[in-house]
Amino acid sequence: MASEGFAHTPRPPYYAVIFTSQRNADDGSAYGTTADRMVELAAQQPGYLGVESVRGADGLGITVSYWESEAAILAWRRHAEHTLARERGRTEWYEHYELRVARVERAYGGP
Amino acid sequence: MASEGFAHTPRPPYYAVIFTSQRNADDGSAYGTTADRMVELAAQQPGYLGVESVRGADGLGITVSYWESEAAILAWRRHAEHTLARERGRTEWYEHYELRVARVERAYGGP
Repeated sequence: MASEGFAHTPRPPYYAVIFTSQRNADDGSAYGTTADRMVELAAQQPGYLGVESVRGADGLGITVSYWESEAAILAWRRHAEHTLARERGRTEWYEHYELRVARVERAYGGP
Repeated sequence: MASEGFAHTPRPPYYAVIFTSQRNADDGSAYGTTADRMVELAAQQPGYLGVESVRGADGLGITVSYWESEAAILAWRRHAEHTLARERGRTEWYEHYELRVARVERAYGGP
């Protein structure tokens, strides 16, 4: 299916959280389990619109999650289980990351 | 180096173009050559701030390019060589894509 892996977002405006990360050499399964759980949990949050996520063979990854509002992003940021997962990410799993919160103003797809 | 693969963007606000794409089965080297050329050419455009790009083994990719302004994004969109490359992307290389233009409002990195 052509649209697998794509978020089905509404007409803008809405918000995007762009999370770019470099995994370290730790290949523990705890990372994968936690990452899967966060995707599942995010999808249950109010204002969640979808996610697109890719990680390359070199460990660089980009995950973009889409949200209705900044308030929805802040609420998800304060979620206790997510807060714990982020702390493990910082201390155990990521060599480096950059997070950007952006307001989507235009969007289109193809072909 | 921890920051390889990351864009070194200034303090917000600035703009992000989030391009999510699914490659088709065509493994022609023309795609790779063109993709590399577009990265090189984008970096020469006024208002370009950086790029982050990942493609997974399943052919799903996310490329986020960062720009000073919407005007810079529009100028790059109108660049003749880029216009031709996009047309080849649509007709030859991508099964599907989504493009979103967003204004980055907050950003931070770690650890």
